[in-house]
Amino acid sequence: SQNFTITVLPGDGIGPEVIEQAVNVMKVVEELEGVSFSFEYARLGGCAIDEDGTPLPQDTLEKARRSDAVLLGAVGGPKWDNNPAHLRPETGLLGIRKELGLYANLRPAFMLDCMVGVSALREEVVQGVDLMVIRELTGGLYFGEKKRYETEKGEVASDELIYYEYEIERIVRRAFEVARLRSKKLTSVDKANVLESSRLWRKVVDRIAPEYPDVELRHQLVDSCAMELIRWPKQFDTIVTENMFGDILSDEASMLTGSIGMLPSASLADGNFGLYEPVHGSAPDIAGKGIANPTATILSAAMMLRYSFGLEKAANAIEQAVHNVLNSGVRTGDIASNKEEAVGTEEMTNKIIAAM
Amino acid sequence: SQNFTITVLPGDGIGPEVIEQAVNVMKVVEELEGVSFSFEYARLGGCAIDEDGTPLPQDTLEKARRSDAVLLGAVGGPKWDNNPAHLRPETGLLGIRKELGLYANLRPAFMLDCMVGVSALREEVVQGVDLMVIRELTGGLYFGEKKRYETEKGEVASDELIYYEYEIERIVRRAFEVARLRSKKLTSVDKANVLESSRLWRKVVDRIAPEYPDVELRHQLVDSCAMELIRWPKQFDTIVTENMFGDILSDEASMLTGSIGMLPSASLADGNFGLYEPVHGSAPDIAGKGIANPTATILSAAMMLRYSFGLEKAANAIEQAVHNVLNSGVRTGDIASNKEEAVGTEEMTNKIIAAM
Ligand SMILES: CC(C)[C@H](C(=O)O)[C@@H](O)C(=O)O
Ligand SMILES: CC(C)[C@H](C(=O)O)[C@@H](O)C(=O)O
Repeated sequence: SQNFTITVLPGDGIGPEVIEQAVNVMKVVEELEGVSFSFEYARLGGCAIDEDGTPLPQDTLEKARRSDAVLLGAVGGPKWDNNPAHLRPETGLLGIRKELGLYANLRPAFMLDCMVGVSALREEVVQGVDLMVIRELTGGLYFGEKKRYETEKGEVASDELIYYEYEIERIVRRAFEVARLRSKKLTSVDKANVLESSRLWRKVVDRIAPEYPDVELRHQLVDSCAMELIRWPKQFDTIVTENMFGDILSDEASMLTGSIGMLPSASLADGNFGLYEPVHGSAPDIAGKGIANPTATILSAAMMLRYSFGLEKAANAIEQAVHNVLNSGVRTGDIASNKEEAVGTEEMTNKIIAAM
Repeated sequence: SQNFTITVLPGDGIGPEVIEQAVNVMKVVEELEGVSFSFEYARLGGCAIDEDGTPLPQDTLEKARRSDAVLLGAVGGPKWDNNPAHLRPETGLLGIRKELGLYANLRPAFMLDCMVGVSALREEVVQGVDLMVIRELTGGLYFGEKKRYETEKGEVASDELIYYEYEIERIVRRAFEVARLRSKKLTSVDKANVLESSRLWRKVVDRIAPEYPDVELRHQLVDSCAMELIRWPKQFDTIVTENMFGDILSDEASMLTGSIGMLPSASLADGNFGLYEPVHGSAPDIAGKGIANPTATILSAAMMLRYSFGLEKAANAIEQAVHNVLNSGVRTGDIASNKEEAVGTEEMTNKIIAAM
């Protein structure tokens, strides 16, 4: 039978709680699918700073490289917020993305019919929203040269937004492939009326587009996209964009659904390798209370089954189980209209497992 | 009596139509206030490309420099969309901002009670929203060095996000001043967990903050702000941020109100000089039909009266008249639920003038 090795990074805050539940779901998948998973635990973020003196220990990288996929909880918390850059949890996250070549960040944002009530947007605007934001994750402003220096006129600081053609090409191809498996509509977002990097982006997109004649391509400026996502999100299916724009737009798109505690993400390298994590953060304020919503992490595990292991059937089974449980009215505190009746992290997971 | 010289740049598309109406309103202000305005017309954008071979003619700059303020309609259109950068309407806009030192872009986004129906957001989320986004307009990625070159690995393109301390300082001071006259709450938006320019930004904000002890300051990351603007916009009052983030967030904030045809903007230099323009674009599809909403341009003229001429009373009179007309149910096509009953550009203006 197939065996997959998974590096598990529980991280900080509610990370360990939600990870535990996702691992429980994966164990059910082992039985149902006749596959086996080896879980290798390691540290990333704040817990690694405390234990190892660095947010991304070498041991973590080595384990990740030996494994078939990585499952991450969440990193960060006030405890480390005032640390210098190299001792901050985010630096571990940026480091692991770069080191493992995880250039393609897939961020689905979907609205389940039974959840329209939690969105800040009107029912008719968000009902049926089903988007995929694909963000370039290892280039652009995040990784370009940074400078900080004194001049006669005072201090200066800069970051470089730089893209190589090949970096754009691989993410754009990935986006066309994903769009092809969805509604075949791809929106490429840039600021080509101002930025040179966006002009190269658009040129590469236009060069690759003819290879995907079945996918309908549209270019949109980032400011216009930020507006249109609110005005009428259903006009979008798959969106592809550079790192910084993707950071902003994927979070904006998440919030359309109102239920960020349910949204998963995948960060993919070439081939089948990927890192999977919930969109929500480490939520230190509710850590250890057993009330965190495990759904986003469980759905992240489902993405792992689909994208890294090719276990499409098992991925669908988890997603369907999550939908059924939510449809039946079960809610964790973050999405409950009646907080009294909210279930905890473990009970939510057990319902999902039962529904599988 | 006081005389003010105003450079009027009608621009392209619906620009000339809405400008004509704003000038009519200004003529009413002349009578009511006993001041006089000299209107000097000039070209910017597409019309200037056609007539003068450049989107920002020298004559336009000279007129603007000699005047007390500039009133702009809108620039751009499909006709010039495929031109090389130096022959594009946007280039004229970026040029005039830089040449005139218009570093502080003020973008109010407000929800009138009678308009809640046009927003994509739920009534309880947007009712009472009253934000001011202050965007740095002459620095950052827009004006940093751009590169484009070939390497062995293919083409490369880059833009530099660079800020001098003094550039941050002047916009941040402006923002504190504005916040002080509003609800005394200022949110400074950056990406200090990743960008060096944002770390300098935050440092400067923290250095200046003690000079405004009456203003409550909060730092927020740009991705988080993009989410929170949707989740609960009423938590914000004044937002200040760098150029690119401001471009995205101000457009996002505009769309919360659902009525972008009503939103004005001011781009201010040191002192009293400023350029005022509606947030909406040149809308070539409806140009020349007499149906464009003149409200945003009329409210931009009101901002001019307030910020450049110190005519607060007249500014309030225009704003109040606009509110009263909208409250009475008069609507242009873009915001009408019953398109049959929509009024045209001229009728809308006449109602506003009558209400003054
Ligand atoms: C923590 C931060 C560096 C990170 C990012 O901006 O990439 C986060 O916001 C995300 O989107 O995963
Ligand atoms: C036309 C474009 C260059 C401009 C900008 O991005 O600044 C516009 O979007 C705006 O916000 O005024």
